[in-house]
Amino acid sequence: MKIDINSDMGEGFGPYTLADDAALMAQISSANVACGYHAGDPLIMDRTVCLARDHGVDLGAHVSFPDRMGFGRRRMDIPLPELEAHVLYQIGALAGFARRAGHRVSHMNPHGALGNLASVDAGIAEAVADATLAFDPEIAFLVLPGSALETAALARGGKVVRLFLADRGYLPDGQLAPRGTPGAVIDDESQVVARVLGVLRRQTLTCVSGEEIAMPVQSVLVHSDTPGAVGLARRLKQEITTIGGEIAPLSAQ
Amino acid sequence: MKIDINSDMGEGFGPYTLADDAALMAQISSANVACGYHAGDPLIMDRTVCLARDHGVDLGAHVSFPDRMGFGRRRMDIPLPELEAHVLYQIGALAGFARRAGHRVSHMNPHGALGNLASVDAGIAEAVADATLAFDPEIAFLVLPGSALETAALARGGKVVRLFLADRGYLPDGQLAPRGTPGAVIDDESQVVARVLGVLRRQTLTCVSGEEIAMPVQSVLVHSDTPGAVGLARRLKQEITTIGGEIAPLSAQ
Amino acid sequence: MKIDINSDMGEGFGPYTLADDAALMAQISSANVACGYHAGDPLIMDRTVCLARDHGVDLGAHVSFPDRMGFGRRRMDIPLPELEAHVLYQIGALAGFARRAGHRVSHMNPHGALGNLASVDAGIAEAVADATLAFDPEIAFLVLPGSALETAALARGGKVVRLFLADRGYLPDGQLAPRGTPGAVIDDESQVVARVLGVLRRQTLTCVSGEEIAMPVQSVLVHSDTPGAVGLARRLKQEITTIGGEIAPLSAQ
Amino acid sequence: MKIDINSDMGEGFGPYTLADDAALMAQISSANVACGYHAGDPLIMDRTVCLARDHGVDLGAHVSFPDRMGFGRRRMDIPLPELEAHVLYQIGALAGFARRAGHRVSHMNPHGALGNLASVDAGIAEAVADATLAFDPEIAFLVLPGSALETAALARGGKVVRLFLADRGYLPDGQLAPRGTPGAVIDDESQVVARVLGVLRRQTLTCVSGEEIAMPVQSVLVHSDTPGAVGLARRLKQEITTIGGEIAPLSAQ
Repeated sequence: MKIDINSDMGEGFGPYTLADDAALMAQISSANVACGYHAGDPLIMDRTVCLARDHGVDLGAHVSFPDRMGFGRRRMDIPLPELEAHVLYQIGALAGFARRAGHRVSHMNPHGALGNLASVDAGIAEAVADATLAFDPEIAFLVLPGSALETAALARGGKVVRLFLADRGYLPDGQLAPRGTPGAVIDDESQVVARVLGVLRRQTLTCVSGEEIAMPVQSVLVHSDTPGAVGLARRLKQEITTIGGEIAPLSAQ
Repeated sequence: MKIDINSDMGEGFGPYTLADDAALMAQISSANVACGYHAGDPLIMDRTVCLARDHGVDLGAHVSFPDRMGFGRRRMDIPLPELEAHVLYQIGALAGFARRAGHRVSHMNPHGALGNLASVDAGIAEAVADATLAFDPEIAFLVLPGSALETAALARGGKVVRLFLADRGYLPDGQLAPRGTPGAVIDDESQVVARVLGVLRRQTLTCVSGEEIAMPVQSVLVHSDTPGAVGLARRLKQEITTIGGEIAPLSAQ
Repeated sequence: MKIDINSDMGEGFGPYTLADDAALMAQISSANVACGYHAGDPLIMDRTVCLARDHGVDLGAHVSFPDRMGFGRRRMDIPLPELEAHVLYQIGALAGFARRAGHRVSHMNPHGALGNLASVDAGIAEAVADATLAFDPEIAFLVLPGSALETAALARGGKVVRLFLADRGYLPDGQLAPRGTPGAVIDDESQVVARVLGVLRRQTLTCVSGEEIAMPVQSVLVHSDTPGAVGLARRLKQEITTIGGEIAPLSAQ
Repeated sequence: MKIDINSDMGEGFGPYTLADDAALMAQISSANVACGYHAGDPLIMDRTVCLARDHGVDLGAHVSFPDRMGFGRRRMDIPLPELEAHVLYQIGALAGFARRAGHRVSHMNPHGALGNLASVDAGIAEAVADATLAFDPEIAFLVLPGSALETAALARGGKVVRLFLADRGYLPDGQLAPRGTPGAVIDDESQVVARVLGVLRRQTLTCVSGEEIAMPVQSVLVHSDTPGAVGLARRLKQEITTIGGEIAPLSAQ
């Protein structure tokens, strides 16, 4: 009964900070690190990689469209060969810091608009998967169950780790309930924790319509930039351990 | 009697092209590839790396200050830890493309203002050398003889390859004659070729004041963005071969 | 019988040049100047504005999505209030140079993907028109006849000038024939000139299917980055003058 | 007995926020707005300009070197004609938002490394002054007394307003005491307020060595990004009013 707690990290830029990465790093098992496209810069990447190494936290490339002002959250119509090149550039750059730090990039997941597209668009998912596996066939893909990226990764012999968004409601078909609909976002920390423990015990989740759906996940995302992120991660860690679960990084799933 | 012919490559950006890289790649033995800081972008880096691989040309990281508009030609007062991070970011990113292409980054040299500073400023030279060797201790430094970067690389057990600027006059102390002084720039192609052959034969050069100075170099730079670059490289290759010399990439020096 | 000859200008960046702006400026009557988003930089903008002023050429803001690498040619899903801000930023910046040069920004047209969207998407067209007219209600919109931007500009009391793409085939409904279909692109210079003269005389054009359609245009675009652009503009100027026509900038239409 | 309270504003970027601009704007009389070079973006500029207008706060262009990652704090060796173009670009862009908002750019001051250089380097100060006055000869320069920018502005017939850094110690010659030396930075809010009141009453200041020096200033800077900035500004406003002083924007000095 192992589960990974992960978080997006290194999302500051130059003089700007979004989250208390140092505090959160102590509570999680895997980090998705911005690579200078939607956020992050070489100095922040270097510090974040060292922080992950120091805490025994797995290192992932959180790749994005090249759009700092929009924080990678808006679609750009980039041709697939160029998209592959952007993915390679980002993973390679992060791997440079990992190499100096004696760490390694062991997983990846696309951020924001690229992440959304890679979940539903086979062409984009395949470009992301191809570029990643060409760099290193051992890199795992952190995916939503049922996503196009999961399909593309598996079709190429890639390893996938399935992600649970603990504070989001799900539809009967396993998709996220759209923001703005009832039950789409769960704000209550205790409820979030209870959902994680339930999923961990049963690999199922009660969806917004009340049905029990399969939720075969190995990783839980804690949003680094929401207030209380550090406390939530700490509590998740404690309660999972209390029921005999084990926090383990992605590479140990 | 081996010598490398090298050139700066991949210095276009988006819709822009500076040189006919495909034609020149066929005539050289080593390429210094822009990494998206002073020039280049992920798509161009990918193409340039593949072109180098296809021609059996050695691949080097041509790292720079982050300044596209100034083409990396102007000094920026970047603190050394940040400078190291920029160097790592660029080498790592290029290495990502090399990995996919089945090639490798086997040398590096800093571009423009960073190159000038690394030749004379020990702190900057050491930052460049530290970041590079932390990434890969096998990466060779393409340096001017007597430069601070040569000193820093050697002090760290790094490999250096010394570069000859065939179209530039030298002072008695081995430094480049400043542009604007008599004999500082040699435009005549035959004279440039004769100088290379002389250096290859004797490892000495007649400097601007007429004295013969040591010129212990293993590599000749052909500027990719000057008219006639392809023709000059081709002629150098032929004449060197005619006198029994051998064109060999940096890694074979 | 007046017509404007216009061209996109100032599309270099830093060390890069796309076209011979100085030569072409002498042959045209209006220039659409890149504002540092898809191309151009402050130094190039300054030079281009001065060049336009020196030749008595009208100055227009050629606004774009913020995407240098893609040359503004790909769609970005930018929210409309932000899009308005980007349009204002670009027009304002160009107007700064105009003010120093004793010139003025008298027209605008959106570039690339933004231009395509502003032709068909009412929301985007309205955002572009609103931002422009808020800056200066006298700025004319250079539009394709029948486009959403024409509609939006007219609905706001804005001035429009209709543009003819002399080297493109048109469909019976007045839309451009898609590239790749027969007659979509006219390469022959004489044919391009003949079309302009015909449109100038009759305000109609023979479309790709052979029908005569209305072509009520006041301006002809010469692509600055195609070979022969200067020659084509010069010939257009001569032949239009020969038949008694007059080349006049947008502001005189 | 009038004095301006001013602050740097609009220094966020995309998803990032540095200060509570809305709260501080209510307490100050002039704002120096980032123009997208060291910080700020078109959307933030637009909001900040509207906020200034709504509070009757004077609008200034806070121009910088093009360096977001370094927040404009490090020197770049940019040639003077290019520097002028960067200054024009930034002032023009900000003026675009002012125009839509029914406000105007009435002052300017250079930020960070450019500000430091413009205080001591005559060439840079002249470039900044030339570009600004070419845009609008009515724009006032917010300067340190005795700086090169003050000299350059006055020599060109420009208006200057002299700035007091209330939380910084001064040397007998009127220069700022270097950070790290005793008395260089005053943290105590009451002491900062007392200094402002003293300067307002007497136009002199006790410098770090105990001597009384002339301090002929018309404006006090409150750093927007330090904790307590809003409280300090509010208290300054109250205490100045209490002693019969008047808070008045730069344009009323």
